[in-house]
Amino acid sequence: MRIAIVGCGQLSRMLALAGIPMGIQFSFVNDNGAPDTVCVDGLGIIANWQAGDSAAELFEQLGRPDCVTVEKEQLDVSLLLALEAHCPVYPNSLAVSACQNRHREKQLLQQLGIPASPYTVGESASATLTSLSLPLVAKSCSEGYDGKNQWVIRNAQDAAEFDAACAGDDYIIEQWIPFEREVSQVSVRGRDGTICHYPLAENTHTAGILSRSIAPAPDVNPAMVLQAQDYMQRLLEELDYVGVLAMECFVTPSQLLVNELAPRVHNSGHWTQSGSVTSQFENHVRAVAGLPLGRTRMHGVAGMINLIGTAQAPLQAMSGNCTVHWYNKSVRAGRKLGHVNFSADNLAELQAEMARFTASAGDTILL
Amino acid sequence: MRIAIVGCGQLSRMLALAGIPMGIQFSFVNDNGAPDTVCVDGLGIIANWQAGDSAAELFEQLGRPDCVTVEKEQLDVSLLLALEAHCPVYPNSLAVSACQNRHREKQLLQQLGIPASPYTVGESASATLTSLSLPLVAKSCSEGYDGKNQWVIRNAQDAAEFDAACAGDDYIIEQWIPFEREVSQVSVRGRDGTICHYPLAENTHTAGILSRSIAPAPDVNPAMVLQAQDYMQRLLEELDYVGVLAMECFVTPSQLLVNELAPRVHNSGHWTQSGSVTSQFENHVRAVAGLPLGRTRMHGVAGMINLIGTAQAPLQAMSGNCTVHWYNKSVRAGRKLGHVNFSADNLAELQAEMARFTASAGDTILL
Repeated sequence: MRIAIVGCGQLSRMLALAGIPMGIQFSFVNDNGAPDTVCVDGLGIIANWQAGDSAAELFEQLGRPDCVTVEKEQLDVSLLLALEAHCPVYPNSLAVSACQNRHREKQLLQQLGIPASPYTVGESASATLTSLSLPLVAKSCSEGYDGKNQWVIRNAQDAAEFDAACAGDDYIIEQWIPFEREVSQVSVRGRDGTICHYPLAENTHTAGILSRSIAPAPDVNPAMVLQAQDYMQRLLEELDYVGVLAMECFVTPSQLLVNELAPRVHNSGHWTQSGSVTSQFENHVRAVAGLPLGRTRMHGVAGMINLIGTAQAPLQAMSGNCTVHWYNKSVRAGRKLGHVNFSADNLAELQAEMARFTASAGDTILL
Repeated sequence: MRIAIVGCGQLSRMLALAGIPMGIQFSFVNDNGAPDTVCVDGLGIIANWQAGDSAAELFEQLGRPDCVTVEKEQLDVSLLLALEAHCPVYPNSLAVSACQNRHREKQLLQQLGIPASPYTVGESASATLTSLSLPLVAKSCSEGYDGKNQWVIRNAQDAAEFDAACAGDDYIIEQWIPFEREVSQVSVRGRDGTICHYPLAENTHTAGILSRSIAPAPDVNPAMVLQAQDYMQRLLEELDYVGVLAMECFVTPSQLLVNELAPRVHNSGHWTQSGSVTSQFENHVRAVAGLPLGRTRMHGVAGMINLIGTAQAPLQAMSGNCTVHWYNKSVRAGRKLGHVNFSADNLAELQAEMARFTASAGDTILL
């Protein structure tokens, strides 16, 4: 069994590290022309590809994989379409395409009756002021993640400035949601249609980048858990989705509003490596390989802290309750270089342990 | 941080797979002259060594590791002694030496007042009949594992045959113990002297090879748990041991008798990959790297079935409660080619799941 993954980043690394113990082999597509494949060096075949290259040749270079999957949505969907002629691609190109563009994502949610924030597309910010109320958030349709390419529009002057700067660009403009907090639902669907849900995680962002997660999300109304699972089931079935899908939601007093979908394993699910019977990485591998899914049940409570711009792996700050994951990437401010998973018997113990870690790791971590 | 491991088998593979997520790098010493390094291919540097080769050159070829450890006790201790001049070796050469020879092991246990079966050394089986009562078990001092190189002596004729066949060989002759069952204690000691114990596991053998384990060992007298931990603590401290040590014991009505020590991660601790907060592999890596140890507490109950001579990885027989580990070794009857870890909420569920697996895997597994 050989699985090829489009992308050479830390998510590909952790997918491979979850599948190698089962004897599964991996190949990686380096599709961004960057020489930095350090996350996956040694873990399998690495093949370069760029727009215009032959997919048939790539398929051979990848060692004729049994299936192809992805670690990211920002990729050339024509590559997935071309590879689909050689082997199954999970999730399918339609699902990746729907999630890589904010407008198509909004249309999908609307079509399935899944609540999301109201928006305009193809309209200027100034025109949007007549249909939506301030504040607004303008987001690039195709290139936004980790808070990049987002404009907050608080007044008419902001709107005019945005229109002057971004006229003709491809963006949507959303009503800003006064949310209480952000949670995410990570779920997995097997080739046979079986669906397993992880518990909701609560996420905290720093400067637009996910900085920490806690699961299960504290004080969540049980009806909201069911709502998240219901949204997920509709999405997974509509897209005939195979693998892990992540859904970020805003918690509002009345309901969950979907903020964003990611057709892949997700940073807000990294805690599953320590906190669940089966991690999101192992379950994605099991799903795309056509194997029975593993249980998603938790052990106690779990947490995750991202190591952003951290100079070196803070291994000495580990304790019995936590494990550092380090991606071997070159250090750069604002870059996700690793994460730490925490497990504990209860929320108070978890929070104390996360506080102890950040105090102990001190200057080595930048959060 | 780079760790070199003497040996290229599945234990080295699983140690590396536990350390790579932390960003630790690995090197492997292929010290048996065999070309088969398939278990660790791709996971780090592989360097060949045989008696007479320079340890200094080996140290360079291994990439100047921060420390050296072992995946087996049957190795040339002079290699460890020579490497100790370049970097720390954990466990130290004295500990490995004590565990690689049954006579030295018996002496160590005796010196620490740890109960083991009575034995003779340097005496013929016929002479031993005068001091120990039948049946007896003769074991090669240095080359026995998985039941190999063991003779059961049931009567005077067996004794005479053994003496004729093995005169001059290096062996001990033990009183055979009418044990109720075999359990094993796996523990780990950090560089700072911290000790963590895993729960006792109950082991079942088939034709002298471990075929399955269940943890925690059912119906164990709590005093016996403390006894096992007490034996372990005495051994770990006496040997100034760093890393995982495994101790196989016979359960008798009155006490635990130590059967065998292994100065390394052990097959009877493989269940910790699914069943504990931290696996024996991760904890061995943490110990030898001088990092804080991880918790050894269990999630529910756990089990392990060895895949012996199995034609191919029985991935389709997995369920939500189990994960296959496959070593990529060439298939041979009687060879350990992988194992399956099971986790469940209680013993009845665990046993049902293990029975389901063996039924479902059917002809593909040979146990």
